[in-house]
Amino acid sequence: MLFSIPQKVLFKHCDPAGLVFYPRYFEMINDLIETFFDHVGYPFETLHGAYAVPTVQIDVTFPAPSRHGDHLELALQIHRLGTTSVTFGFRATANDSLRFEGTSILVHITKDGQPTPWTSTTRTAFTPYIRSTA
Amino acid sequence: MLFSIPQKVLFKHCDPAGLVFYPRYFEMINDLIETFFDHVGYPFETLHGAYAVPTVQIDVTFPAPSRHGDHLELALQIHRLGTTSVTFGFRATANDSLRFEGTSILVHITKDGQPTPWTSTTRTAFTPYIRSTA
Amino acid sequence: MLFSIPQKVLFKHCDPAGLVFYPRYFEMINDLIETFFDHVGYPFETLHGAYAVPTVQIDVTFPAPSRHGDHLELALQIHRLGTTSVTFGFRATANDSLRFEGTSILVHITKDGQPTPWTSTTRTAFTPYIRSTA
Amino acid sequence: MLFSIPQKVLFKHCDPAGLVFYPRYFEMINDLIETFFDHVGYPFETLHGAYAVPTVQIDVTFPAPSRHGDHLELALQIHRLGTTSVTFGFRATANDSLRFEGTSILVHITKDGQPTPWTSTTRTAFTPYIRSTA
Repeated sequence: MLFSIPQKVLFKHCDPAGLVFYPRYFEMINDLIETFFDHVGYPFETLHGAYAVPTVQIDVTFPAPSRHGDHLELALQIHRLGTTSVTFGFRATANDSLRFEGTSILVHITKDGQPTPWTSTTRTAFTPYIRSTA
Repeated sequence: MLFSIPQKVLFKHCDPAGLVFYPRYFEMINDLIETFFDHVGYPFETLHGAYAVPTVQIDVTFPAPSRHGDHLELALQIHRLGTTSVTFGFRATANDSLRFEGTSILVHITKDGQPTPWTSTTRTAFTPYIRSTA
Repeated sequence: MLFSIPQKVLFKHCDPAGLVFYPRYFEMINDLIETFFDHVGYPFETLHGAYAVPTVQIDVTFPAPSRHGDHLELALQIHRLGTTSVTFGFRATANDSLRFEGTSILVHITKDGQPTPWTSTTRTAFTPYIRSTA
Repeated sequence: MLFSIPQKVLFKHCDPAGLVFYPRYFEMINDLIETFFDHVGYPFETLHGAYAVPTVQIDVTFPAPSRHGDHLELALQIHRLGTTSVTFGFRATANDSLRFEGTSILVHITKDGQPTPWTSTTRTAFTPYIRSTA
């Protein structure tokens, strides 16, 4: 199952070439993942009291540019759920045009930086979003 | 030959966990590349009159976090110089600790989006920064 | 009449003190005004083809901090509608607590920087949002 | 005495109109103030261990736009040094053209939000930068 949110391309996202400045895409990716954690019942504002979920790897391709006013759909699914990590696959499309696509790995750590297992509640909430390989 | 610039981790770069928020690293990477183009005599503010250099692919790993006040050194070299593209390898270190490392591909395009060759002047200026494979 | 939008405080908005970093509030203010122009039928992505609306003055007070996860309501009204300018009053609240409040002046200009009158259509669309002084 | 730093207008600062997007100016203002605190021996990365200096009021005018590649000089002085607060006056110029000018008030607080006096060491370090009224 995919989790998705809409994101209109706003003035603040765009550069002098009139296109989305790619570091702003990474803010969108973070917003998508933050909204997903909220959706599965483990919101970032709760999580960050005692834990953190730093991104340790990310790769993205940008096959076509996005312009001010484009209506993007941002979507993610889970490619791999580890004991203390999660690998997301994500993409943005506008009218069936792919704007970016990539994967990222986040690790669930304690405040002192030690990887720590997801709770069973969180694992259960993540499960419907794991990519089917059937 | 490496091209490098210093970058202190500032308040604006950091998140509630007290660490650099990773989309801010992508702004640093863009600043590094913009400063490099300036250094080789093809500044972004000139380039963007008739051309653009969108990033079409980027991958980064973050082996260790950075904290407010850390003194980073950002460095790049060219992994591959194509006719109309360039692949950069880049990294950030602080006191010999690697904070991020990655590669990105930029394409030199005209305002209407067509890939266009680097001038021979630009190729010559890029050449000392191509990674030696000897 | 007030125009308002919801804005949850996200991870990206917050600083190492766990509070909203105030330059992020100015991005929220810009989003609020962009959404308002969209609402009245003069969207920024259309406007910026031939015109621009630079902010020439802004003042804001921040009586109380906002934290990650707070649900803000951003609201504006028009304090003064000039021939070529508009003065907005805006504020953000969360559970009746005022987080920021201020005013800004925007000027409607052509691409070569000359102030140019609002169309009568735009003036009519703005009118319900002019602050009542009765 | 004025405290000043150079700031080139970079690609990341600019909007689709090719001008600095004004929320980026507020990041520059924060950088200027952070660099000033560093200069007077009370760096933000130390200060934020036990204290914070939230901005409680800011007003800025923007008499002329800045473009990609402009070399700004950012300068500040202290307009008023209170027991637990400081009022800065700041401005940015490029080739004698004023780009923005304003004032902001910061309050020195403890982690639990209580205003707390500047140390005498900090007061002494601030003193040369207090605007002369003679």
